[in-house]
Amino acid sequence: MSKKAMVYIQSGGPTSVINTSLYGAIREAQRHPEEIEGIYGSLNGVEGLLNDRLIDLGKEDDSTIELLKQTPGAILGTTRYKLPKDLHDEQYGRIIETLKKHNIGYVFVNGGNDSMDTCYKLSLLAKELNLDIKVMGVPKTVDNDLAETDHSLGFSSAAKYVANTVKEIIIDAQVYRRGKVFIIEIMGRNAGWLTATVDLLPEGFRPDLIYLPENKFDVEKFLADSKRIFEEKGHVIAALSEGIQFERDTSTARVDSFGHMQLGGAGADLARIVESRLDLPTRAIELSLPQRAYSFLTSKVDQDEAIACGTIAVQKALEGMTGHMIAIKRVSSKPYQVKYEPVDISKIANVERVVPQSMMIDDTHMAPSFREYCLPLIQGEIQVEYEDGIIKAAVLKKVPVK
Amino acid sequence: MSKKAMVYIQSGGPTSVINTSLYGAIREAQRHPEEIEGIYGSLNGVEGLLNDRLIDLGKEDDSTIELLKQTPGAILGTTRYKLPKDLHDEQYGRIIETLKKHNIGYVFVNGGNDSMDTCYKLSLLAKELNLDIKVMGVPKTVDNDLAETDHSLGFSSAAKYVANTVKEIIIDAQVYRRGKVFIIEIMGRNAGWLTATVDLLPEGFRPDLIYLPENKFDVEKFLADSKRIFEEKGHVIAALSEGIQFERDTSTARVDSFGHMQLGGAGADLARIVESRLDLPTRAIELSLPQRAYSFLTSKVDQDEAIACGTIAVQKALEGMTGHMIAIKRVSSKPYQVKYEPVDISKIANVERVVPQSMMIDDTHMAPSFREYCLPLIQGEIQVEYEDGIIKAAVLKKVPVK
Repeated sequence: MSKKAMVYIQSGGPTSVINTSLYGAIREAQRHPEEIEGIYGSLNGVEGLLNDRLIDLGKEDDSTIELLKQTPGAILGTTRYKLPKDLHDEQYGRIIETLKKHNIGYVFVNGGNDSMDTCYKLSLLAKELNLDIKVMGVPKTVDNDLAETDHSLGFSSAAKYVANTVKEIIIDAQVYRRGKVFIIEIMGRNAGWLTATVDLLPEGFRPDLIYLPENKFDVEKFLADSKRIFEEKGHVIAALSEGIQFERDTSTARVDSFGHMQLGGAGADLARIVESRLDLPTRAIELSLPQRAYSFLTSKVDQDEAIACGTIAVQKALEGMTGHMIAIKRVSSKPYQVKYEPVDISKIANVERVVPQSMMIDDTHMAPSFREYCLPLIQGEIQVEYEDGIIKAAVLKKVPVK
Repeated sequence: MSKKAMVYIQSGGPTSVINTSLYGAIREAQRHPEEIEGIYGSLNGVEGLLNDRLIDLGKEDDSTIELLKQTPGAILGTTRYKLPKDLHDEQYGRIIETLKKHNIGYVFVNGGNDSMDTCYKLSLLAKELNLDIKVMGVPKTVDNDLAETDHSLGFSSAAKYVANTVKEIIIDAQVYRRGKVFIIEIMGRNAGWLTATVDLLPEGFRPDLIYLPENKFDVEKFLADSKRIFEEKGHVIAALSEGIQFERDTSTARVDSFGHMQLGGAGADLARIVESRLDLPTRAIELSLPQRAYSFLTSKVDQDEAIACGTIAVQKALEGMTGHMIAIKRVSSKPYQVKYEPVDISKIANVERVVPQSMMIDDTHMAPSFREYCLPLIQGEIQVEYEDGIIKAAVLKKVPVK
């Protein structure tokens, strides 16, 4: 077998562990110097292949590679660029040119549904042109909406962040005798997995109301419930997915200088409705970017699995596999045990998995089966290295591949 | 000396370590059973004294007291209630009744400027009526605007949270080739201490622009700087205090059903201005409640000093001191060393300390002297105990004092 180079692609939204999967792939590749002649990173996802912008990860210090495990984000840069359907499009010509120029035999795409579409197209391209290039996927998305895998890398850490941070907010929310209606907005356009994680909190630290986009959101019921709970407890904690749908009161919406309607986030808009309809003090809190990429609350389970998926993707590619994503299959919840299985990528690309109704009791509470599913994922803490009180992050030299 | 009870009051906004000062005070009181006959907590600040709502902290489990060190918020509940000026007001009669009923000889008020006003009034009251009651203050505020102390308890942990969280946001903000104008809103109405802490970040992870309320905010200059930086780097990171003043564009403001103008936060409103004037994508991120009370990023320096201030307040009261707050005085920055000194509370109540101009280079950058001042405060991490992946928090039994 002739020596080939590998290229790693990070794609879609960042997470706490996308760089940890990269770490796993690099370390495994380093164990196979007889087969892998170069370990490259593609800058800004597939854009790096389109524009021949690759960096040589072999030129990075070993200490930098170690720090990848505590560096959130997407250190190679990422993209939401979608490749054309037609495999004869000139863009694919440019990609093949880059792959051939650098003698690349292994391509790894680390991403969510959309990115698995990129992965799928690249694998089809290699097959159609009979190129000796193996294309493998590594699952990732805090939304946890990838099909065919028990859960996605990055979700478990985001879940740990969301649950713990909401707990801190709830503690804060209770300090005054007369509190507010707190509306906490959590990521998830179509799938409410991340919002549901607040159900993992112990009693006394759990939101009063939980809203997932899987259910119809009833504003009137929400207002009635909020009023009742406020009268009982002096405050209300509602956790909701950014994707819940309700009629926005456009009469109070801002209009920008171009005449576009400027809606707030779901939480902010709902807070305005509570203020105007119930005349209660409110506070909308958007967990925003930190929930998807934050090093301090990385779940150890997530870290271990991210390393494993990166490692196994390289192993399988070296064995000759292509067009598959490494999926996580649960063997048991108690004790928590998983195995890793390659799954045909055509089954995953562009498919979205939402929270099943069986994991909900009603439209504001999760069922015990959700807890059984999710609790094992947020277990364990990682040790992180600080410098001057600030957690250290990897910084790449980014030496271009000539 | 006859045995007396003590009562502890938490007042104003919560922090990461207000319960840690309480821990220090409880542990010190337990070392003096011959002088202190009861360790009580006042529920919701001075409201507990007004309404005779005290709980017996001696009835709490030892493990609960230990957990106070990793429980943010204000476990006794707090208040923003301001006592009347006139010491002959009937409210003081009710307070004295509560103090006498429970044989209280020591009162501790843990709070910021407004709370030190409460502390001051109570100490005056005791003196005027010749009551054998010692009243001592423990400094606290994430705003760091208390006079006569090098810094306030709670600020150091908030600083560690803000700097580290902004670093994570900056990492996330850089993953796409074409980014956004990110506007990060940080607490601080009149004093910009907390916003300034982003200057502690290492190069490459520091915001491009920093705005404190101590300086006049120039919208036009901000827009010009944002445009220039976006063209250079593809994104902009601006960190600003919630208290910066600028003309809000009320033509695009929402009006609620009562006809009240609904302004957003400074960051959200500024983002709208950038969108409409520069036509650039923006994202406003409010660090919100977690920045003031979050257990995971508690500074070890803050924890140690919080315990020390609680401890020393009890010691000084037992020595017969009253009407003083335990201030932190810096002996040296390298190595970092402090001493604790009681300061007459009349010098502190209602006084506000802002960031001096000497700590700024210009209106968007901090001077090295700020770094020298602030960096020692965010050093050291605390070990926290988890249960099922969630950090444990103390829950009090709250046994009422009869």
